[in-house]
Amino acid sequence: MAEDVLPPHRIVVVGGGFGGLEAVQRLAGAGAAITLVDQRNHHIFQPLLYQVATASLATSEIAWPIRAVLRDRADVTTVLATVAGVDAAAHRVLLDEGGSLPYDTLILATGARHAYFGHDEWEPFAPGLKTIEDATRIRRRILLAFERAEIEPDPRLRAALLAFVVIGAGPTGVELAGTIAELARDTLPADFRNIHTQEARVILIEAGKRVLPGFAEDLAAYAQRSLEDLGVEVELGRAVSECSAEGVVYGDRILEARTIIWAAGVRASPAAEWLGVPADRAGRLLVQPDLTVPGHPEIFAIGDTVSVAGPDGKPVPGIAPAAKQQGRHVAATIRRRLGGHASPVPFRYRHAGSLAQIGKRRAVTDFGWIKLRGTLAWWLWGIAHIYFLIGVRTRLSVAISWLWIHARNQRSARLITQGTQSKSQTSNPLAEHKP
Amino acid sequence: MAEDVLPPHRIVVVGGGFGGLEAVQRLAGAGAAITLVDQRNHHIFQPLLYQVATASLATSEIAWPIRAVLRDRADVTTVLATVAGVDAAAHRVLLDEGGSLPYDTLILATGARHAYFGHDEWEPFAPGLKTIEDATRIRRRILLAFERAEIEPDPRLRAALLAFVVIGAGPTGVELAGTIAELARDTLPADFRNIHTQEARVILIEAGKRVLPGFAEDLAAYAQRSLEDLGVEVELGRAVSECSAEGVVYGDRILEARTIIWAAGVRASPAAEWLGVPADRAGRLLVQPDLTVPGHPEIFAIGDTVSVAGPDGKPVPGIAPAAKQQGRHVAATIRRRLGGHASPVPFRYRHAGSLAQIGKRRAVTDFGWIKLRGTLAWWLWGIAHIYFLIGVRTRLSVAISWLWIHARNQRSARLITQGTQSKSQTSNPLAEHKP
Repeated sequence: MAEDVLPPHRIVVVGGGFGGLEAVQRLAGAGAAITLVDQRNHHIFQPLLYQVATASLATSEIAWPIRAVLRDRADVTTVLATVAGVDAAAHRVLLDEGGSLPYDTLILATGARHAYFGHDEWEPFAPGLKTIEDATRIRRRILLAFERAEIEPDPRLRAALLAFVVIGAGPTGVELAGTIAELARDTLPADFRNIHTQEARVILIEAGKRVLPGFAEDLAAYAQRSLEDLGVEVELGRAVSECSAEGVVYGDRILEARTIIWAAGVRASPAAEWLGVPADRAGRLLVQPDLTVPGHPEIFAIGDTVSVAGPDGKPVPGIAPAAKQQGRHVAATIRRRLGGHASPVPFRYRHAGSLAQIGKRRAVTDFGWIKLRGTLAWWLWGIAHIYFLIGVRTRLSVAISWLWIHARNQRSARLITQGTQSKSQTSNPLAEHKP
Repeated sequence: MAEDVLPPHRIVVVGGGFGGLEAVQRLAGAGAAITLVDQRNHHIFQPLLYQVATASLATSEIAWPIRAVLRDRADVTTVLATVAGVDAAAHRVLLDEGGSLPYDTLILATGARHAYFGHDEWEPFAPGLKTIEDATRIRRRILLAFERAEIEPDPRLRAALLAFVVIGAGPTGVELAGTIAELARDTLPADFRNIHTQEARVILIEAGKRVLPGFAEDLAAYAQRSLEDLGVEVELGRAVSECSAEGVVYGDRILEARTIIWAAGVRASPAAEWLGVPADRAGRLLVQPDLTVPGHPEIFAIGDTVSVAGPDGKPVPGIAPAAKQQGRHVAATIRRRLGGHASPVPFRYRHAGSLAQIGKRRAVTDFGWIKLRGTLAWWLWGIAHIYFLIGVRTRLSVAISWLWIHARNQRSARLITQGTQSKSQTSNPLAEHKP
């Protein structure tokens, strides 16, 4: 038949996060030739990345090789490469390695990175949390701070080493602060001889008036009380004006702290720059209601790299379910087009709910029509997260890791690794926290 | 009583590997004040390190925070620090961080590092396998070689990317070669579209006349046949004369290969240099029969950093059971001394057996009085290794990982991580293998 000799429609997907992977999975059987490009070989389950940063889970428990996830999809080629740009006129994705990938349809799902509101010089002192490398770096800093405090004779320096600052009280900031407090309170005390790890301070700083701005007021208030029960100092309404090797300045206060974690702001990938199309202040590409790029009906952009309005007129939040819904919408649009139906259908975001864990037996879940908090919410949180992991093996492994944290207070992934460069025997593991 | 007001006997143990940790554990209840110093925060189960390098196990499955292992030992203080030397006259261990640790008795269990027989310039091209960082670096190289081959148009470069050289056919080399062959044959084929990973070559190069020199002849022959069944090319009696970015030269042959792993030689830690006492050519301190350092009855040295003769006159091998036996012997000697019995007892090495795995259903075990090979030997190998892991949780986790490899050919730890430095979005993940 004539149809069979037509070359297949070529779809290039840039980014193997929640949005890009979902689009690829929903295009199964569409008859297209799909290429998924990512600069990393693994898909990350970002909602649990803070658990790697706090030594609760191992890296391999929340990351999967993308090509293994798609091994049964003969229509998909996975490419590990860094995208340098897009030649929209020639319909080609340009690779940093040289060469390019031709497309008929392009999906940009390139995500976002943490950003410092114009203070990039803060990054070395206040690392953010977006990648596996970010998580192991933060884990190393937290664990090394306790190690260094154990052998520090100067009480003032010891206090600075035992002060942990988290900037930003969205879900990631709240979850990080709660878990660090538990690490210090429950997991570590018996391991040290010279310090009382329970005396570590965890300070959560938020410029806004409340924690968890995406949640209902009463749940946010509950979350704040729960954090305070764990010993976290919640500092609201104070913006950070300085991060340095010594600590932070926020509002009118100066705090000496050797470990600062940034959970406050993000900036979109350069997708809008690649195409020379309008973006908002955070670099998010302003897509059409059907998620196409203005002037380029063959290019879709989804997930954290775009700004699109939800049904309430507010921007769709940068969370995993939103990215997945957009991936699904784009896949459906492409399928309709391949079937000869070209009329655009606007994307409609449905907010499924917001979840955040605070410590190991409390959580808040806000589904709009029902709000839960406490132990029941925590179970729901745990079950939902295990459900969304990929594969039986990972689910089993994460369930066992959580069981051990709950039953024994043991966190198995407390490894201080020193990067991948070769280290001589005289290298100094504590150099990072040296005053 | 007068005894109670005496300060406790101070023991400093340098090194938290098999020897040092065993000594500390056997000194429980001895009434001493023990300090364990290590430059890393974790004890590694080195016999399975090759499984991390080949993506079979996650790092946290074979590494434990030392201070967590010793949390119930109030008599032990764990210090994360790098030792710069020993002031034997002043009875102090000098730390790189500054400061020093006073001791009455010192145990040096500082291990060994891979060495290149005077060719240190080979290290960047042929990394060795001693630490968690080494293992993740080798894992990254192996996985990136396949990624790069997938997008490499030049057949010659593709062949070089799909050639994996292991230098040295002791247990580590044999196990690495077998597992890489299985990775290429069983785990990866369905994941790639442009290359046939089964066509990857694994070349095991050994200067000696046979593989596994520590095993009986017939077991070594069996191991070699098993490797060849897996597709490994075993090259015996050919010394490597060159390692470079292009490949290796061995005997009269030149082989283009982008991935080379060094499993051939080790060099002891600088313990002998710290004390200015005699060492053998590999830097191993020549201890007395009771494992004390000549001229320093209060200093013991054990494990891979020493050379001591076994009952057959041959040197005790550098393996975990030997280090543990020495740790036990030293602990017993110190206990006798604390009890007022000072006469030295010579260390007697008992060789419990040699085990090596070749692929996922074969192994060789040589206990002297009984030699096993094949599936039964493999079960024995697996059970023995799980038995010697620390803690129920790790045993469960490793058992599950192995189950998945056997049942599904899935290796869960196939992560390419890029070290701990911050990576910009334009970083090039393939740079390491660029021709």
